[in-house]
Amino acid sequence: MIIVLKPNTKQEDVSRVEHLVKRRGLDTHIVVGQEMTIIGCIGDTTKIDAKLFEVDASVDKVMHVQEPYKLANRAFHPEDSVVDVSGVKVGRGHLALIAGPCSVESAQQVLEIAAAAKQSGANLLRGGAFKPRTSPYSFQGMGLDGLKILCEAKEATGLPIVTELMSPEHLDIFNEKVDLIQIGARNMQNFDLLKQLGQLDRPILLKRGLNATYEEWIMSAEYIMASGNENVILCERGIRTFETYTRNTLDLQSIPVLRKLTHLPVVVDPSHAGGKWWLVEPMAKAAIAAGADGLMVEVHNDPESALCDGAQSLKPQKYDELLREVTQIAKVIGKKI
Amino acid sequence: MIIVLKPNTKQEDVSRVEHLVKRRGLDTHIVVGQEMTIIGCIGDTTKIDAKLFEVDASVDKVMHVQEPYKLANRAFHPEDSVVDVSGVKVGRGHLALIAGPCSVESAQQVLEIAAAAKQSGANLLRGGAFKPRTSPYSFQGMGLDGLKILCEAKEATGLPIVTELMSPEHLDIFNEKVDLIQIGARNMQNFDLLKQLGQLDRPILLKRGLNATYEEWIMSAEYIMASGNENVILCERGIRTFETYTRNTLDLQSIPVLRKLTHLPVVVDPSHAGGKWWLVEPMAKAAIAAGADGLMVEVHNDPESALCDGAQSLKPQKYDELLREVTQIAKVIGKKI
Amino acid sequence: MIIVLKPNTKQEDVSRVEHLVKRRGLDTHIVVGQEMTIIGCIGDTTKIDAKLFEVDASVDKVMHVQEPYKLANRAFHPEDSVVDVSGVKVGRGHLALIAGPCSVESAQQVLEIAAAAKQSGANLLRGGAFKPRTSPYSFQGMGLDGLKILCEAKEATGLPIVTELMSPEHLDIFNEKVDLIQIGARNMQNFDLLKQLGQLDRPILLKRGLNATYEEWIMSAEYIMASGNENVILCERGIRTFETYTRNTLDLQSIPVLRKLTHLPVVVDPSHAGGKWWLVEPMAKAAIAAGADGLMVEVHNDPESALCDGAQSLKPQKYDELLREVTQIAKVIGKKI
Amino acid sequence: MIIVLKPNTKQEDVSRVEHLVKRRGLDTHIVVGQEMTIIGCIGDTTKIDAKLFEVDASVDKVMHVQEPYKLANRAFHPEDSVVDVSGVKVGRGHLALIAGPCSVESAQQVLEIAAAAKQSGANLLRGGAFKPRTSPYSFQGMGLDGLKILCEAKEATGLPIVTELMSPEHLDIFNEKVDLIQIGARNMQNFDLLKQLGQLDRPILLKRGLNATYEEWIMSAEYIMASGNENVILCERGIRTFETYTRNTLDLQSIPVLRKLTHLPVVVDPSHAGGKWWLVEPMAKAAIAAGADGLMVEVHNDPESALCDGAQSLKPQKYDELLREVTQIAKVIGKKI
Repeated sequence: MIIVLKPNTKQEDVSRVEHLVKRRGLDTHIVVGQEMTIIGCIGDTTKIDAKLFEVDASVDKVMHVQEPYKLANRAFHPEDSVVDVSGVKVGRGHLALIAGPCSVESAQQVLEIAAAAKQSGANLLRGGAFKPRTSPYSFQGMGLDGLKILCEAKEATGLPIVTELMSPEHLDIFNEKVDLIQIGARNMQNFDLLKQLGQLDRPILLKRGLNATYEEWIMSAEYIMASGNENVILCERGIRTFETYTRNTLDLQSIPVLRKLTHLPVVVDPSHAGGKWWLVEPMAKAAIAAGADGLMVEVHNDPESALCDGAQSLKPQKYDELLREVTQIAKVIGKKI
Repeated sequence: MIIVLKPNTKQEDVSRVEHLVKRRGLDTHIVVGQEMTIIGCIGDTTKIDAKLFEVDASVDKVMHVQEPYKLANRAFHPEDSVVDVSGVKVGRGHLALIAGPCSVESAQQVLEIAAAAKQSGANLLRGGAFKPRTSPYSFQGMGLDGLKILCEAKEATGLPIVTELMSPEHLDIFNEKVDLIQIGARNMQNFDLLKQLGQLDRPILLKRGLNATYEEWIMSAEYIMASGNENVILCERGIRTFETYTRNTLDLQSIPVLRKLTHLPVVVDPSHAGGKWWLVEPMAKAAIAAGADGLMVEVHNDPESALCDGAQSLKPQKYDELLREVTQIAKVIGKKI
Repeated sequence: MIIVLKPNTKQEDVSRVEHLVKRRGLDTHIVVGQEMTIIGCIGDTTKIDAKLFEVDASVDKVMHVQEPYKLANRAFHPEDSVVDVSGVKVGRGHLALIAGPCSVESAQQVLEIAAAAKQSGANLLRGGAFKPRTSPYSFQGMGLDGLKILCEAKEATGLPIVTELMSPEHLDIFNEKVDLIQIGARNMQNFDLLKQLGQLDRPILLKRGLNATYEEWIMSAEYIMASGNENVILCERGIRTFETYTRNTLDLQSIPVLRKLTHLPVVVDPSHAGGKWWLVEPMAKAAIAAGADGLMVEVHNDPESALCDGAQSLKPQKYDELLREVTQIAKVIGKKI
Repeated sequence: MIIVLKPNTKQEDVSRVEHLVKRRGLDTHIVVGQEMTIIGCIGDTTKIDAKLFEVDASVDKVMHVQEPYKLANRAFHPEDSVVDVSGVKVGRGHLALIAGPCSVESAQQVLEIAAAAKQSGANLLRGGAFKPRTSPYSFQGMGLDGLKILCEAKEATGLPIVTELMSPEHLDIFNEKVDLIQIGARNMQNFDLLKQLGQLDRPILLKRGLNATYEEWIMSAEYIMASGNENVILCERGIRTFETYTRNTLDLQSIPVLRKLTHLPVVVDPSHAGGKWWLVEPMAKAAIAAGADGLMVEVHNDPESALCDGAQSLKPQKYDELLREVTQIAKVIGKKI
């Protein structure tokens, strides 16, 4: 941490700030420049709030030079992490190919889609039982009945299941039945929930919040990890920008950036980002070319009648074609399928 | 709702889309333009998901013409709502003047600040017992002990209290003890929690999410109202933009816009938006000049030693000066203090 | 400037980077921390491109501690600047009250509006002769004929005129006839034009670009000042954010921020920001309450028939009422009208 | 265009608005809904400003259903355009592989880089002679001397040249000597310049503005096309968002979106978007996988000593490796190299 003092700060004020820093257990190093003086703070500054010093009348600004995360930080864990989802490996070259309907609507629907997706090469089954909806008047998901259907589909196909947890009251049943617990964009900074996820045995799929910086996103993973669960997969799903033609702007630079900053696997959800089915295919291929550790794609056998987000779902036939091209690109990039 | 068909759509395709619309209980009206055909959908479209039609191969786009909210909509409730916070009226000319420390740190601190703030004219006491923090390593608040301190300060000063609820496990105790329950920006779309707030008797202070549009924000109020609790106060606290010199960009246009779209009171939090104490005073005055129904301001007797957000807190003396100017501006605008 | 080296950088690499810095005429100061080493660069770093060092394999990041602007910097010019617009003072408590139609449409229109606005208290007349329009098919302004009409209105009312320059080919005629030359948001980083404005005798009204940070905006003023013309007034007109209900998000925090960073006057244009006439009045009052040095407001005698942006124009009667309230708020704030 | 009237608008007000519409040469069609009435406007609404109607007291909002662009619109020109850059075809499967230094610094530098890039497979040479810089104190480019060096490199290698035009005073010399004239992000809405580009014979590379929507970007192409020059290539180079770790957020969804909306070729500049050399390779591959018609990549033989943007440049060896992988992905996608 570096504290920049205001121009012409007097020696006694420099000393006072220095003292404030030392009181927090840090060492200091003063650099006197031509127009300004800075104080370098030496020691573990991860747990120190920069704002504590900003209030001092002689302080111009405080700058962090160290990342505030430890467990998720690649600097302290140089090798890629591999997350094991009930036998399916994700990361270090292993791709998660997650497919399924946006919402669980019926046993037949899910079974049909799951069978087709598996045939095409999917290795994980997704489906929403609890649905976060902007409007209280929209379909809110089948709830626990939906979860039961997912379990049946898992039994039938052998595909481990991925579904979104929205409320702490379902922590136990999810921990028992769900192979990869998804946390949606809107709960990415539900810190209470994050801490509770740290108590679970299951891996977590943590979606990026619509306005989350890379650092905030990693800090949310750090919450889970610091609470005891290090099996976290990050999922890029688009951020909110001024462009409204697409639902969100898919930020594929997040893939190489996160690979540099953390050791956690990163998968991409091209269905939610764009909100239009014809964007899924080019963006899925782009994500793999950029080095993603997997894809989460909405597949529906009858998008016209879907209760939710049909407009962004691929039909099984399209998904099959997509995986063929994805496989070829993955080979160019050196990934295993 | 208006469905715009693709150029040169054939009559049979127009009929098919028309049929899809009618199946959802709506009437249709076809307008044949020079280059395109549109279908006007007549009936209550509030509960219908536009995307259901967007998947049709002949549909170019679907546009909503009606707001998706009912209970919060000024069109159906033309008069300003007044929310009663344990005897303090908010809205329709009555200002909420909420003041207090960011975090509750000790009984002495809170009592001292509360007494001073009341003296200056504050009518509600704020203080964080549970703190949402980006880092798991930062101070997370005093929890239930903090709440107890707030209750003591209420007893001592008579000021009703405002504090943030972060977890459903505290719904009961908050309903019993907190006069105005605050929902933070990061939980604005925690839909499960919103539904549960609808069961409570206490009014809710709903902060705007960092990336929430006006409509999404109102829809979150609608969640609470549709679940049974119509006492909602909206709180503008800045949105996330590309500008990083300030923590967030305070959007004061939200005040007249929300006044037009809804009947709910709107208060402004200038402390969190800017993140710098010297922005609080000009922005507080601007908010009142723009017609806000109140202010939520962080006041701290010793910002240099605050455990959280000291940099954005006013000292009691500054707060006192602020309220004097605010009172004068409120008079120009025709508000009661 | 501070150079943060990668963890575990070897001594020889530290020396190499140090050498790179010294080659640019700067002194260095090494701070060895617990986990990382930083190099403080001492000397005038304003003109040095941080990226020069970022390419080095041992460098993690480079952070500026000094603002990159000199002439516009309040640190080197502590007193508020006053800009004289043909006799009308702007800044240091003097308000610019700029009013007039979006586009010049006819002599009669401009004269009528100018006379009414002056009567209400406006001290500068605006009107667009050259109009930046998103579409090549929209009305592009009356051009030089429009400028002639503005000059007639100036003669008739005595109000100095403000109008937008779009092309370097009109530099001479603007310098001769226009009292305050406006540079629009879309040209804020037209650096070639900025340099040429530095050659003129007239003051410049520099609007903020839709995506310009405070620093970039000030740097554009610095371009004009460094080229020889120090009479620059900054104009906040809203930035682009994810919210689309309003045309742009008016950022009133810019007023206190710019007052801190620079000595230049700051005026606010509430008409363009919101794009709706009913937002103008509350936002104009808020801007003054926040400490703005003036307002630029669109006034039209017949908004329904305006060729451009009628929806955001006030009628003269509304403008008159607005200025009365603005005057009262200005008094509370301590400004002169 | 659709005009939505306010709830409970009286018949006489409906008629007045209808009359306003007819006065502009359009036909009307009234749709009376349950809660609101809408007026469908029939005819060519491309050239009509929606705001003209928004000012009417009975109008709630006006919605465009038709794109405002004609010449760039794929609806009226279903086939991909191919732009011929002095013999190099771009579009309809043909990739532009543009490489070269950010700034021209010396003849030797450009010749060396050009020869290496050509060897690797580049078919167009880039290099900045006039540089848009945020700071007036930064290196502004070699100017006409830089252009001369580019011409020499063209002569030596046969690669047509691409360079940025910043000022109308250089229109003639660029038209004579530059094969593909680049317009930078900051001039994307310099409408005067766009009109003048329409007079030239050379194709134009139009970069996306940092805050430009797809529609605004296409409208800027429409300006050039409507003025007489239909040879426009669009270049995605990242948009400004809240994320600051990367310089800008590269929006690869723009590729399939623009392909749908227009027939113009779309190339991607991964160097400027991220601002870090290690982002170039993954993003270049992703752009090709998403269907881009080409890449513009900064290549420098000595990035450590570059006068500008060295941090985002690849060394020739890295560029060579990149093109090998890009070629393989292009084959999977069905593009010609």
